[in-house]
Amino acid sequence: MEATTKIFLDENEIPRKWYNLQADLPTPLDPVLNPGTGKPIGPEDLAPIFPMELIKQEVSTERWIPIPDEVRDIYRLWRPTPLYRAVRLEKALKTPAKIYYKWEGVSPPGSHKPNTAVAQAYYNMKEGVERISTETGAGQWGSALAFGTCLFGLDCTVYMVKASYEQKPYRRILMETWGAEVFSSPTQRTNSGREILKKDPDTTGSLGIAISEAVEDAATHDNTKYALGSVLNHVMLHQTVVGLETKKQFEIAEDYPDVMFGCVGGGSNFSGACFPFVGDKLMGKKPELEVIACEPTACPTLTRGPYAYDFGDTAKLTPLLKMYTLGHDFVPAPIHAGGLRYHGDAPLLCKLVNENVMGAVAYNQNEVFEAALTFARTEGIIIAPETAHCVKATIDEALRCKKTREKKTIFFANSGHGHFDLAAYDAYLAGKLVDYAYPEEMIKKSLANLPKV
Amino acid sequence: MEATTKIFLDENEIPRKWYNLQADLPTPLDPVLNPGTGKPIGPEDLAPIFPMELIKQEVSTERWIPIPDEVRDIYRLWRPTPLYRAVRLEKALKTPAKIYYKWEGVSPPGSHKPNTAVAQAYYNMKEGVERISTETGAGQWGSALAFGTCLFGLDCTVYMVKASYEQKPYRRILMETWGAEVFSSPTQRTNSGREILKKDPDTTGSLGIAISEAVEDAATHDNTKYALGSVLNHVMLHQTVVGLETKKQFEIAEDYPDVMFGCVGGGSNFSGACFPFVGDKLMGKKPELEVIACEPTACPTLTRGPYAYDFGDTAKLTPLLKMYTLGHDFVPAPIHAGGLRYHGDAPLLCKLVNENVMGAVAYNQNEVFEAALTFARTEGIIIAPETAHCVKATIDEALRCKKTREKKTIFFANSGHGHFDLAAYDAYLAGKLVDYAYPEEMIKKSLANLPKV
Repeated sequence: MEATTKIFLDENEIPRKWYNLQADLPTPLDPVLNPGTGKPIGPEDLAPIFPMELIKQEVSTERWIPIPDEVRDIYRLWRPTPLYRAVRLEKALKTPAKIYYKWEGVSPPGSHKPNTAVAQAYYNMKEGVERISTETGAGQWGSALAFGTCLFGLDCTVYMVKASYEQKPYRRILMETWGAEVFSSPTQRTNSGREILKKDPDTTGSLGIAISEAVEDAATHDNTKYALGSVLNHVMLHQTVVGLETKKQFEIAEDYPDVMFGCVGGGSNFSGACFPFVGDKLMGKKPELEVIACEPTACPTLTRGPYAYDFGDTAKLTPLLKMYTLGHDFVPAPIHAGGLRYHGDAPLLCKLVNENVMGAVAYNQNEVFEAALTFARTEGIIIAPETAHCVKATIDEALRCKKTREKKTIFFANSGHGHFDLAAYDAYLAGKLVDYAYPEEMIKKSLANLPKV
Repeated sequence: MEATTKIFLDENEIPRKWYNLQADLPTPLDPVLNPGTGKPIGPEDLAPIFPMELIKQEVSTERWIPIPDEVRDIYRLWRPTPLYRAVRLEKALKTPAKIYYKWEGVSPPGSHKPNTAVAQAYYNMKEGVERISTETGAGQWGSALAFGTCLFGLDCTVYMVKASYEQKPYRRILMETWGAEVFSSPTQRTNSGREILKKDPDTTGSLGIAISEAVEDAATHDNTKYALGSVLNHVMLHQTVVGLETKKQFEIAEDYPDVMFGCVGGGSNFSGACFPFVGDKLMGKKPELEVIACEPTACPTLTRGPYAYDFGDTAKLTPLLKMYTLGHDFVPAPIHAGGLRYHGDAPLLCKLVNENVMGAVAYNQNEVFEAALTFARTEGIIIAPETAHCVKATIDEALRCKKTREKKTIFFANSGHGHFDLAAYDAYLAGKLVDYAYPEEMIKKSLANLPKV
């Protein structure tokens, strides 16, 4: 009865440094390339849209990067987050395995996203930037950046994909409550937007278009920069605050994971929770540690894509990144886990997959929601559809351990709550959730358009 | 920079006993009366709808009542909740006052309500009850009970006011995700429902009707009982887990409140947070402590109602309670703080107001949302419209302290998040929120129908 359910840390145990996995990679990352010249880009290429400190972090190979006091001071509003032992889920599954999860849903925007949004807002503020532009699909990232900029007194402009803007007003209101201005993208405010609207006035927009508008906005206005919520190295870096806390909490529990699961869209949640442990693995401290990325079958980047250079966006505005990709014009089926609908993945994470340091699995959405329901009815928490992917993996592994009688220690990154995703739960409960077929043909088609390098 | 933002307690510091204010009242509560005979009711009158243990707690004058291990075990899923020092709000207001708040929004249903829902589900389960029926307006209480019954393996039937059922599908889905069955009230399942529908097939329902249906359901089915989320003594009792934790946390902070604010609908949030401190006041430990209930001007029970016997529901099915009341057929204006739209208040709390142990203030909704926005943009948290009433009081007091240079310690009970109330924020931001006039005439009319005792 008296098993510990959650492990808290004191505020002074919020990490003082982020962990940079680039310091411990067996071989360095492939360079980011200029699509025109095919040559590696330099800091000056990124300076129009990012502040210099973030550009430095992007290429740094220092193992530890100090977290500014002003950033830690805002982290305190919700950090350290609790590490839970899922005692009630274990009992329901009758598994001998131990299940732990790190709970990021306690942040005001409800996910891990503010860990980097707050840091990015801070560095922009320090360099005199007055406004940040960004894109958002379902709204998780946009609301995190609205929160972060609000606390540092910056303006924030969010280009929200039109389909989401109309269907998900709650996330839009959240951003506005924190003072951001939110536009339904495409807009008449940018060349990219106007061009699209000219061709197709009734378009519902796309993340690719919204990125183009946000980047153009930053590049064409003084004192305005652009911010991205995933994929880039500095974003992974900021998120390691999650995994570093988790390590301390496992020490208190006198335990250490045997297998770690996290959902992967662009990779920031997964990387944040797992990289400090991956560092241990690479250093030979726990070579047998299994680290598994969980993605949707509708967008099976790591499980089905090639490891190749590709654009980060549909409109081909970004430099070329070496990553697993389904092709920059791949359009995933409209699954409810909107945060996992990205054609590529963080280069750092892709390198680990390519070197067999970690693995990946893919799930269809009904089995994922079944897992989310089991979780809600045992642990009480309504999780985001994205997170539900790694809960599915966790439950499968725990049931496997039941058969083999293994007392494994399983960890998953519980990245956020599903309070704004209840329509998806409703569809699942009503038996109306669609399982999409594997997008074989579409992948073949979009991969044919990969840039030649 | 390094001021503590929040004070956590370890899991083993979840209180082991609830505090019963009835033990410390200067004079006992007035008895609950049978409306037919005018005589005090006994346990046997309540037995058809409540389990015996809760009936005992309702009338107990023991100071401490043990919390069952099984209930504490579920409290661990989110308790102890953090006590925050609102450092960023203090700075923004430039006040010398210190502001603290207890944050109950971290519970899975998002408010303080599960503190009693879990306890009520437990006692029903122990006495062999298999199903609990209840009513819900906006859905806070219904979702807490769905959560509590789910974790103890009980069935749960919720009669949700039709207007809310149609306008607020998210709360309905939340209840269904935890396995409850939810009906749009009035239904064809009960005599009360059928009678109303015969008279008015297009009715949008009311809390009064939903209560009648839930009580009738419990009274007419085997192994089914009824549960109420506020007003009754045993509900206030269970909520004291909030205030007891808060006292420990103030000890750690080496501080003690000078003034305490909480919003009041039926009184459970306010009582839970404040009663352990009110006990100190009554015992002479802090006689100058100010304890202030915050209510809406649209439903000014404590500030404008008489202290009189009245029914707890519109349909006159309940016994008579001595309380401040606006009359059982008072229908408040449709303010967004749905949880504060109740004509009466908990008898325990009303007695304290009547004996001048505590006071009350009322606010209109635009000033309340202005306070909520200030809070969101400083402390980051989007609070429920109900809670916003005491944030308004807190900000006013902090600004008063700025003028008088008083270093008062202010506390408010932060009872829940506003994730399902964003439409109200949207209306406020768009300047479309209505401030209703004081309901003078309506109060006069409904008070004319108070029962003669």
